[in-house]
This record gives sequence, structure tokens and C-alpha cells, in this order.
Amino acid sequence: MLATVLHGPRDVRYEHIDEPKILKPTDAIIKLAATCVCGSDLWPYRGLQPMDGPMNMGHEYCGVVLEVGSEVKTVKPGQFVVGSFCLSDNTCPHCQYGFQSSCAQREFMSGAQAPYARVPLADGTLVATAQLPSEDLIPSLLAASDVLGTGWYAADAARVKPGSTVVVVGDGAVGLMGVLSAKQMGAERIIAMSRHKSRQALALEYGATHIVSERGKEGVAQIQAITRGIGADSMLECVGTAESMKQAIQSTRPGGAIGYVGVPHGVELDGQSLFFSQVGMLGGPAPVRRFLPQLMDLVLSRSINPGKVFDLQLPLAEVAEGYRAMDERRAIKTLLRV
Amino acid sequence: MLATVLHGPRDVRYEHIDEPKILKPTDAIIKLAATCVCGSDLWPYRGLQPMDGPMNMGHEYCGVVLEVGSEVKTVKPGQFVVGSFCLSDNTCPHCQYGFQSSCAQREFMSGAQAPYARVPLADGTLVATAQLPSEDLIPSLLAASDVLGTGWYAADAARVKPGSTVVVVGDGAVGLMGVLSAKQMGAERIIAMSRHKSRQALALEYGATHIVSERGKEGVAQIQAITRGIGADSMLECVGTAESMKQAIQSTRPGGAIGYVGVPHGVELDGQSLFFSQVGMLGGPAPVRRFLPQLMDLVLSRSINPGKVFDLQLPLAEVAEGYRAMDERRAIKTLLRV
Repeated sequence: MLATVLHGPRDVRYEHIDEPKILKPTDAIIKLAATCVCGSDLWPYRGLQPMDGPMNMGHEYCGVVLEVGSEVKTVKPGQFVVGSFCLSDNTCPHCQYGFQSSCAQREFMSGAQAPYARVPLADGTLVATAQLPSEDLIPSLLAASDVLGTGWYAADAARVKPGSTVVVVGDGAVGLMGVLSAKQMGAERIIAMSRHKSRQALALEYGATHIVSERGKEGVAQIQAITRGIGADSMLECVGTAESMKQAIQSTRPGGAIGYVGVPHGVELDGQSLFFSQVGMLGGPAPVRRFLPQLMDLVLSRSINPGKVFDLQLPLAEVAEGYRAMDERRAIKTLLRV
Repeated sequence: MLATVLHGPRDVRYEHIDEPKILKPTDAIIKLAATCVCGSDLWPYRGLQPMDGPMNMGHEYCGVVLEVGSEVKTVKPGQFVVGSFCLSDNTCPHCQYGFQSSCAQREFMSGAQAPYARVPLADGTLVATAQLPSEDLIPSLLAASDVLGTGWYAADAARVKPGSTVVVVGDGAVGLMGVLSAKQMGAERIIAMSRHKSRQALALEYGATHIVSERGKEGVAQIQAITRGIGADSMLECVGTAESMKQAIQSTRPGGAIGYVGVPHGVELDGQSLFFSQVGMLGGPAPVRRFLPQLMDLVLSRSINPGKVFDLQLPLAEVAEGYRAMDERRAIKTLLRV
């Protein structure tokens, strides 16, 4: 089959690789309904993450089950499924505690920017719909696989409640999903930090009540002004740089909480400053599997439309352009039609 | 009056200073029933904290109100009161949110290792008992002023619940109060990390179910063995060194929470490691005022006996020996009779 392989910085190729096969009795093979490019794919694409050789790219996926291994019991061929980018058995103590992204058997999905993909730990990872979903819901179901689940986790970790004042740092796809999630959880004020017109517009559509385009000190000052010097109850940090983390900490009220989901790059936290800030912190790769049934229900009932975050749709064959558009910030997120 | 002044490293003097006076209409003057030496007093005592000149020491206190300023409304002369080491108005948004230790008007108490002390922000800070308490309850009421309130906050921040598995790092007074607090909150397993026989004994008396005397990697391995590789639900970090914090993070389960109340000294946290550990973190100077009425009730009803943490009692005149005994770890905590 033809699929996506990253050979080195900015060298994305759409080329022949072997079709995936069942390797373990707990595997499933799915035919992708759609797939997409993730902000985290840009780290190796930009040469900012070491590579051990060519990588089969893609970890966001939904589609129809083609084949299952002999031990798979909860999904069967013909079913439409969505899974998390973190593969988990959903039975170990960490999974049972709701932290499937730290599953004792955790693997990270790969090779999903392709027509077919192997999903290890299929029973624990995949959630099936009752029937084949309407075609127009595919982008939103695909979003649930990673960005929606990650934005939702950020809001959950930041303890967003009805009436909360929430700040979202980062206007990438995850940040925008954070806005949507905070809205669903009943936040009263949602301040989206964004300097891009198109992203501001989508943030407002998803429920943002304020837009702050300043960053750093000026950004902190704006948040303090809007919150009358109190700071945010809940902070969703969806970037992962030293500057964004500092801004997040300085804009959160004492006793407030930061959910941080941008993988930190070059972030060192001074223990004493963090101590005196009295902000709660919880982050990590999102345990999307915990939220997946609820998020799929919200999509299937058309209560939310996370699929709008895909502002560029391309055939899989044009995947290289999909990466370029995101790298150059011409697109928020690229959906790849299979 | 004769009171405690620190002139420099290991130079504690019991010497004449002016008696405290009402300086602001929101002040109260109290006659101390007892006071004590705090682990944090040892930082400047050991020369590990810069000093701007002689310091009037002591921030833990309870006693009888002698005089109040013209604006004080909730306490009056003759009442027995306990207050937090953090002075707060208890009305600002941070106080209302339960984080009185970040009060907009916050000051830190000083000068309480003395017969008389000035308490600023008396209305917000002091909690009065209905009647004068029995003499034997004074040590426990004094403990509520700081170490009990701080241990309680650590357990609260670490989200201890009925059935929790809790680890307490640090066997100083605060750590021991953390054990007591976790027990009160219904923890099922309480693992106290301690290598001192007398402290182990008190930890067991306060509710510890396990003692781990190893530290560092070996300590982490012990916790993992006791929790069958899962890690602790709740971690009370009551030390504040780089080593203790690392040990705490590595012993907490993904999705578990660390309440850290040891003021961090030389602690740098790597953002990416913290991210992938998926542990929640909340720390800071304890908002003792939030818990004070409940803690005083527990003491007055004789449900808890935190006063046992004072294993050395001296007259105030011997305060220098009180510091020495704690510095040399001959005493857990020194109570000073006034």
C-alpha cells in the first residue's frame, strides 16, 4: 500500500510499504475512514526530535475493523471504531484509575497516515459505534482520537466547573478543543490567547468569551485585568514552551489549576516559585480512552462539532503538503482523505 | 519584655525588646499561652537563609487576647485564640477561595517566641474558642497554628480520601501531622518514611500502617513493592529538597497527587519528566485559616492529640537550647512555656 513515511526533517514521502498484518492475538487491522496530521508530528518534521530511521507516521484514526486477532473479544470486523493515540489494555490498575495513557502495557499508535493500520491492544483501545456513522461525522469522530480528547483532558485536569473562569494558552487544534471542552463543562468565562484571526474566529465559535492576543508579560497583564487581579480558576496550557508555561503559572489564581498537555520542550520549573504560586498542576499524555465513549456520544448526537478544527482537507497522496501547510501555519489541522 | 532574637547563624538570644503595641486598628495583642520552634526557623538559624539584621523569631501562637485595635470586631480581650502563621483578612477573593496564605493583604507572623505578640489582621486571622481551654490542650491548640494545619493541607492537596494509599515523605513535625491528617481523612494505608526510632513510634501511634526507612532509589523500590508496582494515590512531601521531591514524584501513581509543603530549596523540576509522570502537584504555604475551626474542634473534642509532637518542653528563657535540640535532631519539636 501507499502510506506516509518521514525520512528526515521536512522529508515526508507517500510511498510503498507492506500492508499491516495481525502480529499478536490482541491486534486488530482497520481500514481508515480518515486520518490527519498532528501538531506533535511537526516536532520530528522540524528536526526537533531525534529519529532512529524512517518513521511510519500517524497516530489519529477511525475506521472500519477488517480483521481481529484470536483473543480480541469486544470489536469485530465490520464495526466502525475510534481509538486513542495511546494504546492501552484498559484493565491494568492505571487504566482502571482513568490514566490509560500510563497503561502498564502502553504503546503509542503509529502508521495511521495510511489506508490500513494495525491497532495493538484492540479490546482495550477501540470503542465501536452502534452503527456506521454518517459520512459528515467522520472528521469529528477522528478529532476524538487525539485533539478533542487531549483538550478535554486539559480542561478536566484544570478542574473546569460550571461558572469557572478559564484561560486557554495555545490556539492550535488542541487549544481550540480546550475551548470547546471548557464550554461543555459549563465555564462562564473562556479567555482564548490567540493572535491569528481565523483561530480567534473558531475559538469564539467554540465558546470563547474573550480573546487576548498579547503574550508574555503583556498577556499576563491582560488576564489579570480581565479577572480583576484574581487570575484564572483553570488554565489549559496547550503549547509546552518555557514561555507559555511561565505565562500560565503567572495567570492562574492561588488554588487554581493548570492542565498542561503541550509536551514540554525546554521547560524547567523552579520549585520555590511554583510553591509560592500555589497553583495545582496536572499534565501528561491525555488518557483519551477514559473520555472516548462520552466524546463519541457528544459527536454522534451532534452536540459538538470538533471536526471544524480541520481547516484543510487533502487526499492522503498529498500528505506532504498537509505537513507543509501546518508547519507554515497556513492550516490549523490537516485531515487526510483515505 | 524578654523575647527571642536571632542575631546570626546559631546565635539565638533571649533578650530585652520593647513590648508589642497596637500599630494598626486591625491589630490585636495577645498574651501567649505557649509558643514553639518551627523547622523553618532552622533555615536562618543554620545560615541557609539571608538575614537583613536581627530577627524577632516565632510564628506559631495561641493565647489570650489582651487588647484589640479600634476596627477589630470578631475577637475581644479575654478570649482564647489560635491563629495561623499566615496573617490574612479572610475576605479577599483568595481567602474566599480557601487560599488565605495568598491573601491580598498577607503578612507572615513574627515575634511569637515571646510573652506577648502583636497579631495584625486580627479579625481575619484569629479563631476564638467558646471558653478558656483546659491547660493540657494547649500544646495541641498550638500545633494547629502551623504544623497540624500544614500537615492537613498536605493531605488535602494530595487529595487523601477514604481508602487511599498515602506516603508521607519527611518525619519532622509536619510529616507526623501529615500522618495524623491522612488517618483522619480515612486513608487505608499510610506509609511513613522515617529512619528515626522515636519518630517511627509516633508515626505508628498517629496511624501509619507501614514504615520505610530507605531513601532515594531504595525508598522508591520499597514503596513500589508495598503498592505492588502501582505507586501511592497520595503523596505528602514534607521536606523540600531535590532528593525528597524526586523520590515523591517517582513513588506516586499516574493520576495520583502530591501535596508539597516543605519549602523547596534547590529544587528544579524538569517539565517533560513531570509531564510523563502524570502526577498532580499542589503546594505552597498552608492556608491554615481554612482548616483552623475544624482542627480546633477536633482538638477540643479530644479526637486528636497533635500536641504529642512536642517531645521537648522548655521555659522560654531556654529557647536557645530548644533550637539546638532541633538542629541536632535530638527533638522533633520544642514547645516553649511562657
